Amino acid sequence: MNLPSKTLEEAVDAIAMLPGIGKKTALRLVLYLLKEEDSATFQLTDSLKKLKSNIKYCKECHNISDEEICSICSNAFRDGDIVCVVEDLRDVIAIENTAQYQGKYHVLGGIISPMEGIGPGELTIDSLLAKCDTVKEIILALPSTMEGDTTAFYIQKKLKDKAVKVSTLARGIPIGGELEYADEITLGRSILERVNYSK
Amino acid sequence: MNLPSKTLEEAVDAIAMLPGIGKKTALRLVLYLLKEEDSATFQLTDSLKKLKSNIKYCKECHNISDEEICSICSNAFRDGDIVCVVEDLRDVIAIENTAQYQGKYHVLGGIISPMEGIGPGELTIDSLLAKCDTVKEIILALPSTMEGDTTAFYIQKKLKDKAVKVSTLARGIPIGGELEYADEITLGRSILERVNYSK
Repeated sequence: MNLPSKTLEEAVDAIAMLPGIGKKTALRLVLYLLKEEDSATFQLTDSLKKLKSNIKYCKECHNISDEEICSICSNAFRDGDIVCVVEDLRDVIAIENTAQYQGKYHVLGGIISPMEGIGPGELTIDSLLAKCDTVKEIILALPSTMEGDTTAFYIQKKLKDKAVKVSTLARGIPIGGELEYADEITLGRSILERVNYSK
Repeated sequence: MNLPSKTLEEAVDAIAMLPGIGKKTALRLVLYLLKEEDSATFQLTDSLKKLKSNIKYCKECHNISDEEICSICSNAFRDGDIVCVVEDLRDVIAIENTAQYQGKYHVLGGIISPMEGIGPGELTIDSLLAKCDTVKEIILALPSTMEGDTTAFYIQKKLKDKAVKVSTLARGIPIGGELEYADEITLGRSILERVNYSK
């Protein structure tokens, strides 16, 4: 794209650096900010700066939190014997929305991805291992991708000699899903791991 | 969405205020910025602040420009007798990309839209009318929407008593377009305004 101004180009490039935003969308956003009052832009830049300087992480579960210990970890009604291991905050929100889980969480802050240069050292795996002697069950709620499986495998191996029970999310046909639209691997696994009605 | 931190929520809300970006996308962008180095966020906020304070508009055509007069207006090889009236910078880029137009531009900075509270006074229509005595043709290259047609109609009415020729973009079936997928209004107009092969 041939932009007529360097200032404009810098702003477009900075926004287009965000994931999932291309140059055309970035230009649309920049033109929107130019049309709006200055206060709209300053509110955006101030809140992003505050985000970087003020954000804190829960010392227990490493989730984003305003307090030292987040509201889930400090909640005495939640079961501290079960820890659900997730990639990031969005997975905590998704699981909380189901209202089916009463245990605590452990946020890894990412998953092992050699392609993006993220190794186990970048994640909060050491802190998870340190917890394992006091909890009864670890649920690995990681994405069902190559990276997610690698991370789950790595954690499982590290936990091999510990007494803690390790489980993972059930995989299968989504509720409301048509069999003909399910992918072959999911459908195949859901037959192999069929659930017995009589049990 | 129930976010665990006020700082996070403010940043998500500020990004979700941008057009076409919802809360889920905003959260994804915020988590991306949190994972990246501080410099990525500061580059973004600095370039947006610079954008608001440093951006200049060409005194002739009102397009965004780093100079007083933009590179198109100051180009002696472009035909100053024809002025193409467009909504904003993106339309200038789109027409420039065709390499079919050698005249100059006039950027309105928007189109008349009572729904969004944009009247003729907010646009650069007065400056366009002032130009009309010295140019031979005005091409109204405005969007084919209710707002675009209203703006074109308003400008045409203002130009009624002037000697300048006023034209608009040809409407019809896009090149490479299948007749069966064309909407009825476009197809109908393209029959009524058919082009004579023998002319």
